[in-house]
Amino acid sequence: MILALAGGVGGAKLAAGLQQVLGDKLTVAVNTGDDFRHLGLAISPDLDTVMYTLAGINNPQTGWGLAGESWSFMDMMGKLGGETWFRLGDRDLATHVERSRRLASGEPLSAVTAALCERLGVPARVVPMSDDPVHTMVQTESGELAFQDYFVRLHCEPAVRGLRFDGAAAARIGTAFADAFAAPTLEGIAICPSNPYLSIGPMRAIPEIEQQLRRRRVPAVAVSPIIAGRAVKGPAEKIMRELGREVSALEVARGYLGLIDGFVLDAQDAALTGAIEALGLRAIAIDTLMSDTARSAAVARETLRLIASLA
Amino acid sequence: MILALAGGVGGAKLAAGLQQVLGDKLTVAVNTGDDFRHLGLAISPDLDTVMYTLAGINNPQTGWGLAGESWSFMDMMGKLGGETWFRLGDRDLATHVERSRRLASGEPLSAVTAALCERLGVPARVVPMSDDPVHTMVQTESGELAFQDYFVRLHCEPAVRGLRFDGAAAARIGTAFADAFAAPTLEGIAICPSNPYLSIGPMRAIPEIEQQLRRRRVPAVAVSPIIAGRAVKGPAEKIMRELGREVSALEVARGYLGLIDGFVLDAQDAALTGAIEALGLRAIAIDTLMSDTARSAAVARETLRLIASLA
Repeated sequence: MILALAGGVGGAKLAAGLQQVLGDKLTVAVNTGDDFRHLGLAISPDLDTVMYTLAGINNPQTGWGLAGESWSFMDMMGKLGGETWFRLGDRDLATHVERSRRLASGEPLSAVTAALCERLGVPARVVPMSDDPVHTMVQTESGELAFQDYFVRLHCEPAVRGLRFDGAAAARIGTAFADAFAAPTLEGIAICPSNPYLSIGPMRAIPEIEQQLRRRRVPAVAVSPIIAGRAVKGPAEKIMRELGREVSALEVARGYLGLIDGFVLDAQDAALTGAIEALGLRAIAIDTLMSDTARSAAVARETLRLIASLA
Repeated sequence: MILALAGGVGGAKLAAGLQQVLGDKLTVAVNTGDDFRHLGLAISPDLDTVMYTLAGINNPQTGWGLAGESWSFMDMMGKLGGETWFRLGDRDLATHVERSRRLASGEPLSAVTAALCERLGVPARVVPMSDDPVHTMVQTESGELAFQDYFVRLHCEPAVRGLRFDGAAAARIGTAFADAFAAPTLEGIAICPSNPYLSIGPMRAIPEIEQQLRRRRVPAVAVSPIIAGRAVKGPAEKIMRELGREVSALEVARGYLGLIDGFVLDAQDAALTGAIEALGLRAIAIDTLMSDTARSAAVARETLRLIASLA
């Protein structure tokens, strides 16, 4: 069994590749720092991106939401003067309404996620990082912003000065996530090419998760979300620059020191292999761009090969 | 100004006819005994039927919901294993989500209703009978049922033994409804052809409303929802029979004694005019079937003429 840590789009792509290879021998732990209540509903953007991608019903164009979505709800919401800055498709909305109803009835987020994934026929086990609320707060030049205000409403425009993961210090690791770490069948850990600050950062801010990663009994590898000094998608590049970090796979590898044994970087960054190995990591340079499901499976296979070589 | 009391489809039709004639010189007080929480959302079926009809965006085929509605949300809800027995269209859902959000933020139902109606360009003032929760409970041979369980889920099949309006004794009349009764401009009251037991019954169960109707300073008339021993729509006929009542316009008029001064019955029931006048009411027999908006306006005009003749 492999345990993958994932955030949004890039993480979901590698998770889908791993699922192609491993089927149900995969647990994907997902960031919930982006979760928020909107229009009275409990929205879990990263859980949904992973769930929809693993179910094969995601919208590959946008990277979020469902393929073939319709927008009647949103149109009417606009007519009624409601908030429309966070786009909720008609079908997607069913996920939020059903999740909200189940949470309100006392089910933990992990149970709700498991039930939704089962209904959608997802072979892998998808688990939230925690059943406790954690809220990523973005400290910017214009003050502290809730994550979705920063990410969606303000299109990541304000310069980031720092991040705060509200609730993380007191949050417990999700039960199913802890079970995966403890499973005798666990063979390796993969940190997906998700934003190290916004997607993996909230997990690391939960003390039990950082501890489990540091005390791992099996090899762990990370896949770089930075290719040739650019993020494939999302604000990772902009944030690294604003935080005064070098925008490179090497900087990502440095950030994960202590948590990983191996590192997968892009062939375009092959020149960095030596510097990364000098950090004490085993590194491989491959084509990491997951432009379709075949490429996702290929990156997954190479990642699993690296894990196996470290065992 | 005219004050109309309405429930669902038939009530909404006469209200729309009155609005055609009176424009904004109309207040429509609406039954909220059917209101319920479903999927975590606050649903007000009669308020929505009246609001959508007065906004001209109702579905005239079904009698509920919106014209040109789509059902992607409901389809996905089915896939996720959620409840689908109460049909919520994609656009209709915006009303429930926005209402629920506003209620949760502390706005009373009357303020939420006024805001939604304003956005939809409804000229008349639509007011819930009360801002306090009242729940119509249907006592049947198979026990007491919440209204929507009886009405939608069980298609009105269980035989009705009685009705209970949970919360009505403690509920206050809605502020805007009370204002309409007190307005110096009030010229008359129209009880729409709604179900006397399920739509008007919950209002009468609120002591302040029954009292206001009995102490009225202006003429009040009711329009019969029963034509030739049949209900135009809905379970009124079945319920009257199950409660051991005669299914007739005369029985409806008897039920309103003390609240009304005049009665509009259908031309098919013209033979009952004398019996109804013997109750002390002024009665007129006209074509009451509101098969289109022109017919609704015609019935409204006759109703207003009867009110004027009683002044």
